[in-house]
Amino acid sequence: MLIDGGWREARAVGTFQAVDPSTGEPLTEIYPISSYEDALDALEAGRKASLELAAAPPDAIADFLDLFAARMVEQADQLVETAHRETALPVEPRLRLNELPRTANQTHQAAAAARDRSWCRATLDVKLHIRSRYEALGGPVVVFGPNNFPLAFNAAGGGDMVTAIAAGNPVIAKAHPGHPGTTRLFAEIARGCLDKAGLPPATVQMIFHLDPEDGLKLVAHPSIGAAAFTGGRPAGLKLKEAADRAGKPIYLEMASPNPVFILPGAMKERGEAIAADLFASCSLGAGQFCTKPGLVVLINDEAGQGFVEAARLLFDQPPQGYLLGRGVVDGLKAAIAKMKSQKAMVLVGGKEIEGPGFRFANTLLVVHAWDFLRSPEIFQQEAFGTATLLVLVPDLEEMTAVSEALGGNLAGAVYSHGGDEDDDLYRLIEPILRPKVGRLLNDKMPTGLAVVSAMVHGGPFPAAGHPGFTSVGIPAAMIRFAALRCYDNVRPERLPAELRDRNPTGRMWRLIDGEWSRDDIQR
Amino acid sequence: MLIDGGWREARAVGTFQAVDPSTGEPLTEIYPISSYEDALDALEAGRKASLELAAAPPDAIADFLDLFAARMVEQADQLVETAHRETALPVEPRLRLNELPRTANQTHQAAAAARDRSWCRATLDVKLHIRSRYEALGGPVVVFGPNNFPLAFNAAGGGDMVTAIAAGNPVIAKAHPGHPGTTRLFAEIARGCLDKAGLPPATVQMIFHLDPEDGLKLVAHPSIGAAAFTGGRPAGLKLKEAADRAGKPIYLEMASPNPVFILPGAMKERGEAIAADLFASCSLGAGQFCTKPGLVVLINDEAGQGFVEAARLLFDQPPQGYLLGRGVVDGLKAAIAKMKSQKAMVLVGGKEIEGPGFRFANTLLVVHAWDFLRSPEIFQQEAFGTATLLVLVPDLEEMTAVSEALGGNLAGAVYSHGGDEDDDLYRLIEPILRPKVGRLLNDKMPTGLAVVSAMVHGGPFPAAGHPGFTSVGIPAAMIRFAALRCYDNVRPERLPAELRDRNPTGRMWRLIDGEWSRDDIQR
Repeated sequence: MLIDGGWREARAVGTFQAVDPSTGEPLTEIYPISSYEDALDALEAGRKASLELAAAPPDAIADFLDLFAARMVEQADQLVETAHRETALPVEPRLRLNELPRTANQTHQAAAAARDRSWCRATLDVKLHIRSRYEALGGPVVVFGPNNFPLAFNAAGGGDMVTAIAAGNPVIAKAHPGHPGTTRLFAEIARGCLDKAGLPPATVQMIFHLDPEDGLKLVAHPSIGAAAFTGGRPAGLKLKEAADRAGKPIYLEMASPNPVFILPGAMKERGEAIAADLFASCSLGAGQFCTKPGLVVLINDEAGQGFVEAARLLFDQPPQGYLLGRGVVDGLKAAIAKMKSQKAMVLVGGKEIEGPGFRFANTLLVVHAWDFLRSPEIFQQEAFGTATLLVLVPDLEEMTAVSEALGGNLAGAVYSHGGDEDDDLYRLIEPILRPKVGRLLNDKMPTGLAVVSAMVHGGPFPAAGHPGFTSVGIPAAMIRFAALRCYDNVRPERLPAELRDRNPTGRMWRLIDGEWSRDDIQR
Repeated sequence: MLIDGGWREARAVGTFQAVDPSTGEPLTEIYPISSYEDALDALEAGRKASLELAAAPPDAIADFLDLFAARMVEQADQLVETAHRETALPVEPRLRLNELPRTANQTHQAAAAARDRSWCRATLDVKLHIRSRYEALGGPVVVFGPNNFPLAFNAAGGGDMVTAIAAGNPVIAKAHPGHPGTTRLFAEIARGCLDKAGLPPATVQMIFHLDPEDGLKLVAHPSIGAAAFTGGRPAGLKLKEAADRAGKPIYLEMASPNPVFILPGAMKERGEAIAADLFASCSLGAGQFCTKPGLVVLINDEAGQGFVEAARLLFDQPPQGYLLGRGVVDGLKAAIAKMKSQKAMVLVGGKEIEGPGFRFANTLLVVHAWDFLRSPEIFQQEAFGTATLLVLVPDLEEMTAVSEALGGNLAGAVYSHGGDEDDDLYRLIEPILRPKVGRLLNDKMPTGLAVVSAMVHGGPFPAAGHPGFTSVGIPAAMIRFAALRCYDNVRPERLPAELRDRNPTGRMWRLIDGEWSRDDIQR
């Protein structure tokens, strides 16, 4: 593990191996499960580093991130091969052409935001000498990475890690046990960039694995600044409870079924094309995206039946790719079994495919609205895999009822007629759906998350822990890892550069007496 | 109580009376303790109103708030007299000349922010058609008001209430049982303004009192948008736990001891003047301010001893004003007893004053650093009243140790020499103190909160529930009551006005492709 700048042996309480999902066999490398003492060492080093980082120039942080991104690209072969071995995600296009460039790109964006400094929303009331900004938390951020994006959401190289550092916080990465080798590579690359940028060695630390109970203690420790978790709901809720009780911020992205409404005009106009959209989105990454469309609401009329048949044909082909682990297969099985117990029917698939490796048939389920409405929670449990549930509603009124029974989601989409045929229904559904989803789409499936400033990857509980934040989109994602702090009558020479009269870059945006400005304050 | 636009009798589970703190006798009016069924009625009406408000023009919300502020001023006599009767806070200058104008002023500020719309931080990525903003939560906000500001933090007319409404949310006000009559007046005034502005009648609802268990259910109810609480830590922590478990946002402001450091150069230079500052700040409102300086750290040398003596003389005079209730007296007694049990000495005061009314002698305690450091939590329990603890440190090193033992605070102040004599010590203390306080002051006591855009009234736990928010300062305080929501490929005519190509006011600030701008988007 990487503690305080050096690689050292864990005081392990056990060991583990990653598994090759394409064979189901453990890989040869053996990794330690750290003791809580290891975690405490990381915390102590991280606590000290947080003081040093608070005093580091933003340009040094930006230099580190730019260098880190460049080295990722230089070492793409090794990263991509290791990630492929540990996750069985395809080398091309997925890992090499999509995920790695995205990972490097978001790291450069984080660098640019750190350099630009506008992210901290400096707010100055000139006459009263009161000035405030968001600034680093004052303790390390603990990042728990998910299984499904070994690069872009990696605990030691993904979006949470780079936005936490861009906001000025050291990171303690807790590797996902599905891809420890990939995480180690990221940590090695990051470690190699720190000295050159002049940042403290404990800016990036990495632990391979922890006993879950120790994870709960970690997110509640007085020395941490915050925690970020991307992954399944049961683990996420436990971490949330521990952090909440200690009054520590924790940001969770726990996935969701991401409902898609197909309005009748769109169905008549282009039902088959939408079915193709659905299958493409649903089977992306073997259905292991947090924004996979897992629930489709449509009218049970002739056009709807045509759509069901078109979708059935598309799903009725051998699955592409592997599931990430035994747990994913079991989760999918359990979710399907529960839905079946509540009168969902399997139209196609529904079965694990005999080995080698973790594979599951593409699965299309269907349920009638009245059965859906009897136990809506059962039908909204997110499960990874190329599986989706079609909810057949008899009429527009029931479509509204289904939308009212939805919980919090990362994303939700509405397909409507290219002209205005569906506009009345859209106006009925939208106000109900809007507060339930972090991102509302029109005529587009929810997978494929652009890393741009207006992106929101978050939403109401239980999709996320708090509806006011996003884990994707820079600079907004950085605000998670910052505290709002005020300087009241603090002497000019003691103010942080961002809050002094002179604009520190000449280009930083600041809210001065209520107006956004790049100007210096003139006296 | 005020439910869905009408005053009606509660289905009460009990009754209560407010107490006149100047006599200790109950006032004549009898108020109901509502049943949970009453709360559910308010929730259902609030849920519907939240849909209507989401569609209301921001100008209507602003009109309501401006009218509300104007009517507060028109009915100042009644508000001030009622508040005086229920809290015994002085009519002048406190209630009439300070608190009421501040309350009206912050309401006008909230109106201006709603009208201006820039608060929602509209973020537009033009090329990709992805646009996001903060918008109303989609459910009513439950506001629990504190005892100490019957006007400015009133559940039905104070800062939380007006910022929640300015962000587009209906409010369910839970009156503080110390001033039900004042809260009813605000609710009546607000109710009278709703129709004129064209807002739904359930935009403002008010319940006098609830069983604490019902309060816990209320903040965890699926229909609410969020809750805001200002008050004591025990009640706040229980509400936080209930809301956290349900995944509902809750914002808490739970007060704190607000440490003041007097560096040796400042002490030599102007110790007596600082003692006068301390007494004035500490005795403001009979010491019942969340930002009261409750802990003063100074060097135990000759100048320090002079300060202690000066402070002793100032505190050794009859107390001004009354404490707000029996609970405040008991809380102060208990806090002093605990500190005494840990070797703090009472220099002056420390006793309740015989009736009529709730009065307590001005109290100055002193403790040596080594005793403070043995049980720092005991000495940091906030207690209302004109009481403060002087922590005597033998040297600069121990001053640093005391600063490291501090918990989260709303505010913290450092007094230093007018020249540069204390600069080295400031540079040592500041990085330790800074992450522990929401607002850092120089040469100024923490009471007297300016309602300006850069103000932060918040801080790390346990002073507040989350370090990223403020309950004072507009527009920042509005962000608490908003969700971050994205529109991805949503058709132009379906976008909210704030996210369309055309700037809806011509003056609203928006972040367009990374630059703050007031321009329309040109195609």
